[in-house]
Amino acid sequence: MPQCDFTKSFMKRKKIKSKAVYRFLRTVFFFLCSRSMASKTPVGFIGVGNMGNPMAKNLMKHGYPLIIYDVFPDACKEFLDAGEQVVSSPADVAEKADRIITMLPTSINAIEAYSGANGILKKVKKGSLLIDSSTIDPMVSKELAKEVEKMGAVFMDAPVSGGVGAARSGNLTFMVGGVEEEFAAAQELLGCMGSNVVYCGAVGTGQAAKICNNLLLAISMIGTAEAMNLGIRLGLDPKLLAKILNMSSGRCWSSDTYNPVPGVMDGVPSANNYQGGFGTTLMAKDLGLAQDSATSTKSPILLGSQAHQIYRMMCAKGYSKKDFSSVFQFLREEETF
Amino acid sequence: MPQCDFTKSFMKRKKIKSKAVYRFLRTVFFFLCSRSMASKTPVGFIGVGNMGNPMAKNLMKHGYPLIIYDVFPDACKEFLDAGEQVVSSPADVAEKADRIITMLPTSINAIEAYSGANGILKKVKKGSLLIDSSTIDPMVSKELAKEVEKMGAVFMDAPVSGGVGAARSGNLTFMVGGVEEEFAAAQELLGCMGSNVVYCGAVGTGQAAKICNNLLLAISMIGTAEAMNLGIRLGLDPKLLAKILNMSSGRCWSSDTYNPVPGVMDGVPSANNYQGGFGTTLMAKDLGLAQDSATSTKSPILLGSQAHQIYRMMCAKGYSKKDFSSVFQFLREEETF
Amino acid sequence: MPQCDFTKSFMKRKKIKSKAVYRFLRTVFFFLCSRSMASKTPVGFIGVGNMGNPMAKNLMKHGYPLIIYDVFPDACKEFLDAGEQVVSSPADVAEKADRIITMLPTSINAIEAYSGANGILKKVKKGSLLIDSSTIDPMVSKELAKEVEKMGAVFMDAPVSGGVGAARSGNLTFMVGGVEEEFAAAQELLGCMGSNVVYCGAVGTGQAAKICNNLLLAISMIGTAEAMNLGIRLGLDPKLLAKILNMSSGRCWSSDTYNPVPGVMDGVPSANNYQGGFGTTLMAKDLGLAQDSATSTKSPILLGSQAHQIYRMMCAKGYSKKDFSSVFQFLREEETF
Amino acid sequence: MPQCDFTKSFMKRKKIKSKAVYRFLRTVFFFLCSRSMASKTPVGFIGVGNMGNPMAKNLMKHGYPLIIYDVFPDACKEFLDAGEQVVSSPADVAEKADRIITMLPTSINAIEAYSGANGILKKVKKGSLLIDSSTIDPMVSKELAKEVEKMGAVFMDAPVSGGVGAARSGNLTFMVGGVEEEFAAAQELLGCMGSNVVYCGAVGTGQAAKICNNLLLAISMIGTAEAMNLGIRLGLDPKLLAKILNMSSGRCWSSDTYNPVPGVMDGVPSANNYQGGFGTTLMAKDLGLAQDSATSTKSPILLGSQAHQIYRMMCAKGYSKKDFSSVFQFLREEETF
Repeated sequence: MPQCDFTKSFMKRKKIKSKAVYRFLRTVFFFLCSRSMASKTPVGFIGVGNMGNPMAKNLMKHGYPLIIYDVFPDACKEFLDAGEQVVSSPADVAEKADRIITMLPTSINAIEAYSGANGILKKVKKGSLLIDSSTIDPMVSKELAKEVEKMGAVFMDAPVSGGVGAARSGNLTFMVGGVEEEFAAAQELLGCMGSNVVYCGAVGTGQAAKICNNLLLAISMIGTAEAMNLGIRLGLDPKLLAKILNMSSGRCWSSDTYNPVPGVMDGVPSANNYQGGFGTTLMAKDLGLAQDSATSTKSPILLGSQAHQIYRMMCAKGYSKKDFSSVFQFLREEETF
Repeated sequence: MPQCDFTKSFMKRKKIKSKAVYRFLRTVFFFLCSRSMASKTPVGFIGVGNMGNPMAKNLMKHGYPLIIYDVFPDACKEFLDAGEQVVSSPADVAEKADRIITMLPTSINAIEAYSGANGILKKVKKGSLLIDSSTIDPMVSKELAKEVEKMGAVFMDAPVSGGVGAARSGNLTFMVGGVEEEFAAAQELLGCMGSNVVYCGAVGTGQAAKICNNLLLAISMIGTAEAMNLGIRLGLDPKLLAKILNMSSGRCWSSDTYNPVPGVMDGVPSANNYQGGFGTTLMAKDLGLAQDSATSTKSPILLGSQAHQIYRMMCAKGYSKKDFSSVFQFLREEETF
Repeated sequence: MPQCDFTKSFMKRKKIKSKAVYRFLRTVFFFLCSRSMASKTPVGFIGVGNMGNPMAKNLMKHGYPLIIYDVFPDACKEFLDAGEQVVSSPADVAEKADRIITMLPTSINAIEAYSGANGILKKVKKGSLLIDSSTIDPMVSKELAKEVEKMGAVFMDAPVSGGVGAARSGNLTFMVGGVEEEFAAAQELLGCMGSNVVYCGAVGTGQAAKICNNLLLAISMIGTAEAMNLGIRLGLDPKLLAKILNMSSGRCWSSDTYNPVPGVMDGVPSANNYQGGFGTTLMAKDLGLAQDSATSTKSPILLGSQAHQIYRMMCAKGYSKKDFSSVFQFLREEETF
Repeated sequence: MPQCDFTKSFMKRKKIKSKAVYRFLRTVFFFLCSRSMASKTPVGFIGVGNMGNPMAKNLMKHGYPLIIYDVFPDACKEFLDAGEQVVSSPADVAEKADRIITMLPTSINAIEAYSGANGILKKVKKGSLLIDSSTIDPMVSKELAKEVEKMGAVFMDAPVSGGVGAARSGNLTFMVGGVEEEFAAAQELLGCMGSNVVYCGAVGTGQAAKICNNLLLAISMIGTAEAMNLGIRLGLDPKLLAKILNMSSGRCWSSDTYNPVPGVMDGVPSANNYQGGFGTTLMAKDLGLAQDSATSTKSPILLGSQAHQIYRMMCAKGYSKKDFSSVFQFLREEETF
């Protein structure tokens, strides 16, 4: 219950430890929260998988009643138990909620959820706000936006950066595309799930921003792996080399925050056999989107294209589930593999 | 004369403007400087081109008498006029100085200066300290070190990062490879020319560090250009996209300090039609060294290799003299060229 | 008139030279042909542009009455003048012909022609044979095939290789995908327009074969250009180098039949300032299809991906309308540009 | 002894089995051979490894007495047993023979054999003909040629194409660089070991031709593997796809003579688990030479560079000893690995 969390955090900040005070405050917050909850209309949430689950929970914590749907009924059970409504199709969600968030794995799933036989568009109410947080092709976002608009509703694309951890702690970054006047409304909900909500421009630009970031990320990660590997083979100590790069023009997020070489930094996937983090398959998927966008806009992405193929190869060679920084391991000689 | 500079800067700091005081102080400093200069043995300097010239001048400012040589006599004139000794071969430098700095454009020039018919090795004195600040193949550095060692002298490789501006202001970064016990001695001289002097390990690791940094720099610059170009074509505002990348995992020196897209930042080459900065030809040269090092150590550099070819192409297409961030321009459509 | 052609070729085969016999035979064939023409039902032809125009004419020569449609009415005029029927939508074509050939520039045009508001599917008759000779995404071919099948008709993809010249002389190669039992029916028509009609397998495999061929073609053309350019710079005579490659393991169609270096061969685009031939834009388009197919099937195409980007760059640098072998020119130094 | 071989093969051809006849014939051939041998001056052979061994034997078969040297004495034993002279340094070879063939693995070995402390140049006689069949950097060939010329002798580079099998059967191809007037003299010897001896131009062009061929070969092999793999994933039968490519513009030696897909052709390494053939390590080495040549001549090799890195990666991933067509296996998904 949100009031418990608020009470606890309030007491922590104020350094109050008494149980009695806790109980008193909880009651006070209970009434305050109830009032504010009373004014909150339900929010639809479609897709409560690895990412969607903690995101939906953060909306609950902020007092939003939810209308849940997921193609896998098991994924919904937890929400049913917590007292939320679970329905049996995206259309049903649209019937009961006029603000809906979708969090789905691919373009195809998003199209199905919106335009499918039992899709949102079948029952969407005029004036509804539909926010798609899936990472998909910006062209698909634009198509969906057109169809949504025809029904008199509003569509925004709001893909996230940050993984499951950030989803849990409510620290995701949302990159939002859509009509600017609706941004504040979107921000109200997205702000419950993320610490950064950035307005990027017209529909599709949220996806575009995410795709461009991950394109550059993949390139600089592979570049870091290549430079570190070459340096080590030329006799440099990896920690020292990382230090030199980080104070020079080679500095990048992959070298200074997420170094791919085991032993250089603590608390990153390379320090833990490339477990956790952002999986190679997901990076390959995002680079596929970048490739498609580049092909359709006729933009040359010479290194990006190569990065895509490298992550594609890695998926074929047993790295699918490792963090994407494992490209360092992929490049090394077998002896040291 | 250093005492003049010291006097001027001292007066500036103290906000003294009188000419009489100036003359008095100059005399004081003259005696002080003379005394300190008296204790400084001459330093040899071979190669006083674009970079070597301001570097040598910074040694002068710190009171080191110089023994100068350059294959182009004209390059030496300025130093002759300033009262420094100019000699007619590297061998002659080695005869008169037991600390020598070489600053040459290519591996071949360095080999000639050391092992040529009138090279340093012909007359080098035992115990001399030879510092090569050229950017060359680390294998060549190692070869030279072996030959120098045979003569009872010490060789260190100390390539620089930072361009002509940093050379003038004494703000170069030196990456130094060689025997650790000699590092302090090298630092005494290099500290006069640079603000960062980093010890990297055995001979050749200075070159290795520089090469690895520039390899990663080239890759992330091209990556930044590709991501920015794709984003713009997908409808994003360039400034906003740069801001998003810089607060996300795509952040790198090329995106946050040296953005290649005109209009995003001030005071960088992209704001000035790619004039100045670090020329495409120089980047192609350094990537050639990275390629050679990767081939000889059998290290895969998939993106690095492609970056090398891209800069090679740019040189062939009229970008030789532009800053290396002009790769953004190279990627764009003709219409907007 | 086809009967003239038949007569001539018959006489040639039989080594008959008399003019009187020629006239007699022509008359005989005239009646035979007339009879067979009488039995020929009309064939629909949608898309009579650069390629479609000569293809449709070859069907006419073989005695097929045509039902023509093109989005540009001017393109149809020639056929109207020749006595063919011109209609005002793909749907109208489907109403009047139960065998239809489509020859369109992109996937989007093909989708419009089949599934659009006035598309073929609106009025297609049961049992119709629809042959798409456009070069498009094999996934789109499969989608169209499903929709066509729902209407009780048959769809085959039959992209061509060979340019406008081959289209005129009836020497195209057709790569055909679809139900095997219908291949003979397709062959009857395609054989009038091409000298090679190859059955490739299920729907979409015709496109797949074409895409794979052009992928390999692009790679080996760029490879030939790189090898020839490197050899020339290393001091080899281009003609001699081509000869050596062609008798060794480097031999390929691009080196022995379509050499990209001016002066090596006659009668190829490189001998004529890269005029004519297969345009860089078209190659970039086909590589885009290869890229999309590779992304959707998760097949790594490391060199193919790079080839795609190179042709993309060339389009941006003024090579759009030149033959794709002009990649040799693109790689050369500026001096010789 | 050649007469034994001749006798044996003669008897085999004539189906004679008697020992007495053997002895008689051997004597006859002995005299015949002796006479022709009498007119043949000895030929030096340095480097009798996998390739050098059968090459030297072919010279023996043609009646040339040999002066043998190899850094591994064991490699020479066989020749000693066969009655040839074995000496203890390249210098000794040069003392006893005025025609010398060198067949060594790398540039460094070649430099050592020529310019080392006991190298050929120490004792080379004026007018000697020195033929280097090693595959090395053309720049090194040129350097060696200069040094050899200073001693009044002649140097030619004559790298081979064709593997151990071709070396045994005397079917190698030699690509020869050097002064044209000396080509006939070189041809006399090389013709004993190869079926094709091609004059390429000035010193170094033999290497250049070989490097360019292998560069194009590597690119088209990877291209073939990518196109075949993509086609198979798109549903095409591999044999049919190969047939289509081979009758179209994708045709190349790698598709029509050495197809990398198991099951498409017989008698090639892909039919035998990629055993035998031309090893991945050797291809990586030759691509390293191409890379070095491209870097030093500033020639862009975009795909060649990538091919180099791919073979480099393969060496690191356990493919070192497999035939270079195993790149097809490298690209496939793990499931089917």
